[in-house]
Amino acid sequence: MSDTMRGLAFLERGTVGLVERPVPEPGPGEAVVRTTASLICTSDVHTVDGVLEVPQGRLLGHESVGVVHTVGSGVTSVRVGERVAVNAVTPDGTCDACQAGYTSQCGGPLGGYRFTVQKDGNMAEYFHVNDADYNLAPIPDSLSDELAVYACDMLSTGFIGAENAAVPIGGTVAVFAQGAVGLSATIGARLVGAGLVIAVDGIPERRKLAERFGADITLDPADGDVAERIVELTGGGVDSAIEALGAQATFEDCLRATKAGGTISNLGYHGSEGPTLTIPLDAFGLGMAGKKIATDLCPGGRYRMQRLMRLMDTGRVDPGPMTTHRFGIGDAEKAFAMMSTKQDGIIKPLITY
Amino acid sequence: MSDTMRGLAFLERGTVGLVERPVPEPGPGEAVVRTTASLICTSDVHTVDGVLEVPQGRLLGHESVGVVHTVGSGVTSVRVGERVAVNAVTPDGTCDACQAGYTSQCGGPLGGYRFTVQKDGNMAEYFHVNDADYNLAPIPDSLSDELAVYACDMLSTGFIGAENAAVPIGGTVAVFAQGAVGLSATIGARLVGAGLVIAVDGIPERRKLAERFGADITLDPADGDVAERIVELTGGGVDSAIEALGAQATFEDCLRATKAGGTISNLGYHGSEGPTLTIPLDAFGLGMAGKKIATDLCPGGRYRMQRLMRLMDTGRVDPGPMTTHRFGIGDAEKAFAMMSTKQDGIIKPLITY
Amino acid sequence: MSDTMRGLAFLERGTVGLVERPVPEPGPGEAVVRTTASLICTSDVHTVDGVLEVPQGRLLGHESVGVVHTVGSGVTSVRVGERVAVNAVTPDGTCDACQAGYTSQCGGPLGGYRFTVQKDGNMAEYFHVNDADYNLAPIPDSLSDELAVYACDMLSTGFIGAENAAVPIGGTVAVFAQGAVGLSATIGARLVGAGLVIAVDGIPERRKLAERFGADITLDPADGDVAERIVELTGGGVDSAIEALGAQATFEDCLRATKAGGTISNLGYHGSEGPTLTIPLDAFGLGMAGKKIATDLCPGGRYRMQRLMRLMDTGRVDPGPMTTHRFGIGDAEKAFAMMSTKQDGIIKPLITY
Amino acid sequence: MSDTMRGLAFLERGTVGLVERPVPEPGPGEAVVRTTASLICTSDVHTVDGVLEVPQGRLLGHESVGVVHTVGSGVTSVRVGERVAVNAVTPDGTCDACQAGYTSQCGGPLGGYRFTVQKDGNMAEYFHVNDADYNLAPIPDSLSDELAVYACDMLSTGFIGAENAAVPIGGTVAVFAQGAVGLSATIGARLVGAGLVIAVDGIPERRKLAERFGADITLDPADGDVAERIVELTGGGVDSAIEALGAQATFEDCLRATKAGGTISNLGYHGSEGPTLTIPLDAFGLGMAGKKIATDLCPGGRYRMQRLMRLMDTGRVDPGPMTTHRFGIGDAEKAFAMMSTKQDGIIKPLITY
Repeated sequence: MSDTMRGLAFLERGTVGLVERPVPEPGPGEAVVRTTASLICTSDVHTVDGVLEVPQGRLLGHESVGVVHTVGSGVTSVRVGERVAVNAVTPDGTCDACQAGYTSQCGGPLGGYRFTVQKDGNMAEYFHVNDADYNLAPIPDSLSDELAVYACDMLSTGFIGAENAAVPIGGTVAVFAQGAVGLSATIGARLVGAGLVIAVDGIPERRKLAERFGADITLDPADGDVAERIVELTGGGVDSAIEALGAQATFEDCLRATKAGGTISNLGYHGSEGPTLTIPLDAFGLGMAGKKIATDLCPGGRYRMQRLMRLMDTGRVDPGPMTTHRFGIGDAEKAFAMMSTKQDGIIKPLITY
Repeated sequence: MSDTMRGLAFLERGTVGLVERPVPEPGPGEAVVRTTASLICTSDVHTVDGVLEVPQGRLLGHESVGVVHTVGSGVTSVRVGERVAVNAVTPDGTCDACQAGYTSQCGGPLGGYRFTVQKDGNMAEYFHVNDADYNLAPIPDSLSDELAVYACDMLSTGFIGAENAAVPIGGTVAVFAQGAVGLSATIGARLVGAGLVIAVDGIPERRKLAERFGADITLDPADGDVAERIVELTGGGVDSAIEALGAQATFEDCLRATKAGGTISNLGYHGSEGPTLTIPLDAFGLGMAGKKIATDLCPGGRYRMQRLMRLMDTGRVDPGPMTTHRFGIGDAEKAFAMMSTKQDGIIKPLITY
Repeated sequence: MSDTMRGLAFLERGTVGLVERPVPEPGPGEAVVRTTASLICTSDVHTVDGVLEVPQGRLLGHESVGVVHTVGSGVTSVRVGERVAVNAVTPDGTCDACQAGYTSQCGGPLGGYRFTVQKDGNMAEYFHVNDADYNLAPIPDSLSDELAVYACDMLSTGFIGAENAAVPIGGTVAVFAQGAVGLSATIGARLVGAGLVIAVDGIPERRKLAERFGADITLDPADGDVAERIVELTGGGVDSAIEALGAQATFEDCLRATKAGGTISNLGYHGSEGPTLTIPLDAFGLGMAGKKIATDLCPGGRYRMQRLMRLMDTGRVDPGPMTTHRFGIGDAEKAFAMMSTKQDGIIKPLITY
Repeated sequence: MSDTMRGLAFLERGTVGLVERPVPEPGPGEAVVRTTASLICTSDVHTVDGVLEVPQGRLLGHESVGVVHTVGSGVTSVRVGERVAVNAVTPDGTCDACQAGYTSQCGGPLGGYRFTVQKDGNMAEYFHVNDADYNLAPIPDSLSDELAVYACDMLSTGFIGAENAAVPIGGTVAVFAQGAVGLSATIGARLVGAGLVIAVDGIPERRKLAERFGADITLDPADGDVAERIVELTGGGVDSAIEALGAQATFEDCLRATKAGGTISNLGYHGSEGPTLTIPLDAFGLGMAGKKIATDLCPGGRYRMQRLMRLMDTGRVDPGPMTTHRFGIGDAEKAFAMMSTKQDGIIKPLITY
């Protein structure tokens, strides 16, 4: 029957499961999308680990694309049946933060992040979209769902990390950690004009992927102090460092690897390690070395999605190699388990429906 | 005799004294200025307290104006006898950092700060200026030396704090601490278009001065949690917070008082409290609330000095009320002692020659 | 009876008249405001002169504030009875241009400008507001309607001219023409940190007002080549020039008065003079002197309105002296006639209800 | 004998010739470079055509690299024998424009452009460099002279065109004319993150090269109104258009092809067509469509050169295919003749020594 659907839910700390649910219905200005492809995110894993508090039974997922299934009254920008991508962050477009351009902070800190946190996520056969005209981005005909789904979070997040990094044309960038967000930041660093990209990760496969995505140099933390080596390689430090892990050690390395006047662009979620993050004052020039720290969460909205998809559509960016594993929605539990344990060199598992 | 001069020197930790020295001579591209007015800076006090290591006998001071006394070969932009102001930071204008626009980081972190740190300071009857064509700024005829000297550090530092704060027109700003740098940041916040400036300080006289310099609201930390009150007053936090003290507590308050997407602009020197600065992660949105931390040191160079002096020359900015005390150079030791102990409501002691 | 209202309408080219109309009704997401204060704009005069083609009978006006009268379904940000200001430009907040931050270009070039052009204007006892949650800005209790109404167009337009002018702190600005928009740009130039503001106008009263609003120097074009004098006064040209008239001559003067690397910020509506605007190539450095030309139309939206009103609420900006004449809505025809002929030193006629 | 040298000189309007000259000598802070590779620029052709007035006998050329031959007193950043590149623009680094970051406007409009205009050019066996520490950029060991020479003007100019174009990540760009500057702008547009680059040129070989350098679509003006086709292809106009020809027609097309809120970045030298450039007001939204026009001349200085060379050194950018022809300095007259007549599909002739 078409009015129930399957989705992957948070059951209790450490446990997920496929559940049956009613297909959601759109209110005024809203839409419901029939999902065709999803990606599992490390944030989902964090959530199930209890880092983010969500009610039991809440559906997981925030990286999904599909086909418009139903629209509420007043929705004018899409028609039923159209292929669409929806950002992980779904702002209302109206609040002060949105009007100021900070869609991810819609209504308050991190408030644009609604899937899973404020309502059911979208790793499900259907999903609900608030403020549909603001958030539904038609997928170009020539772009596959399997690529388009990378615009939802990975590229949007990785690229804002690069955009915030204030890289001068031909400048130098170090990207710390080469999971999917870090790899996207590596792509992004090239995309915004970096002349040298140094990618850091302890896993050889990830360093190899980083090279494939445009890193000029890769460094393994096991080989010795990474920040020191970066300072040496660049004759004084990079222009910009991107933190894509969410750890005190890499945050600190970012500060130490960056030259005076440079920018540290943080993408990592620092909620796992404790209530504080520590700045070593020598690396920070005692607060006067002209270093900047930028932070962000995946920016949402249709307009950005269109531009991200265009980059894939013209072949400028191909995140495809990040899809290391594929599953049907029926195997979502297994996919989630692999993602949790980072088995088998998994980067991003793609779920199809 | 004209070839010796008096200057205020660091003698040993905690002790300063007037000393006799040869008048400096300019090398190629350099100049020597006969001093007419100086200001004592809290940084001088920090230096004498041992926070910055400098050799015994090193002259103090980095806020001075005067008259061109001699110039070395190749100096073309000024003539002997011309009234000039020289920034506390004297970049070479040539290194990578200077070409990138970070004059205060000339040659390396904080490297543009030469007076006292790398050579004799300028609280002396004469002082030496490197890269004279880059650094000597003629003082407008209608501007007094006693005002012009505020461009050397106070306004340049306070204003860059406001410029870095990324205040939207009509936005809200909180300035933490209302010493001379904080007061200058308060002036600066109005100058860059803030609609509401909240000034924080525990000393009533300073809060009064802050009001005189354009603060709309002043807060006394003794009256309860300042950050909380700011969040309440502004309905969610300021757009920008300026740290003008150099303390963990105020840095933390800046983070807590700023809304998602806002900017914390650090001016304070954090060398006094320990090797680290701590970021509370809740106030930082776990590294994802779009908050930015900018840092800087007084930007130098003639071009900026001209613009700062123009602001005083047209009456737009009048830092005069910061001059709470006046001394001849013969009384510099006494002036320094008062500055060290912050006696008698002292903000800035002016030294004349 | 409460369901009809009076408003000032365009009757035929050159003729306006008070007409009776049904009070508008809000659709979903929309609102109707009971007007308390309006300002007549030079654009209204242009429209009646036939420069902009609008249907006969269309209500004029786009600068009005009032009290929320009724709201359509889904409006959540205001309640009936609340005092509100509405920008002259009322974007939907959703289209690509809005998401890109160009609210005035909503849906296409100049598309955010709806009043009079796309629907009835708001010089009427009641007016309709599309996308109410995006566009209705509550007026602070301590701010009068008579001041708040300046945020609708004059300050929003004048200030964007200053914001786009890229004035370095303490830099120099020339503002060409001191009508209400030019005067607002003069206020704006000070507000964004200019060190010297030169205001140009041929009418002595306007030059006097310009001085009152913060101009340091005023120039009368009758006294000889203005651009030349500005170049001389500034030793090479201003950092930024603002065109607030919409004429070839002043546009050209802006280019000639600005130094290499400077910015020309255009606010003037150039529709009156012909199909082209001419750039003199010598003043433009043959297209290589680093000069920039920025253009804009009044940016809309609640968030900006709040910031503009805050500037008046804290006393930072007081456009009050622009209100040279006052009329009841019953005398709107007379007010319009005076505005058309610029009689009696009129700057802005205020209409009350 | 080593103290004379050969160089290509402007003899009279329309005529160039190899001449014998003394090897220049460096003054204080200056250097002399022994040339190893040069490129002939269309500007040289313009100069010989009389567009720029220069004295008879003046050496041509401003795109050269080589080896440091001698240095004057005070030069510290390079040693004799070091391979160096020197930008076409050689600012002093000290004037107001340089301190403001507009090195190409050093000392006044276009004033940083010294070679040929203010002193002998560098298409000669040796050339003189003012302000050596500011301007000499060591060439990375792994980068050939034949590539490094592209940093001198082509990449610096083409890329600033892209940098000034304010392309949002994944945005759309049209580049008008695909000579060497236009091709460099095409490379630059990709480099700054464009998602779609449309290159326009009437010559099939140039369109082919444009594709090789990253254009997604190429258009031939012979096939009909280019601006109209661009508006259609992009559903409303590009975010940014780059003018790389210096003609009224392409400038106008840039305005027409760009959407509201977009940027026109001018690189073309408009000195050949007449004293004015015309803006069609409909394409300009009557001065209110939020369109910006940016202009620039090749930015100079070592720091930028280093970054441009890094982009070639890491293989990110390879301008090599622009070198369509090669000559020894002995054949410079022939090379110049070919460049003047654009024979044989010539893009850039490389001169070796």
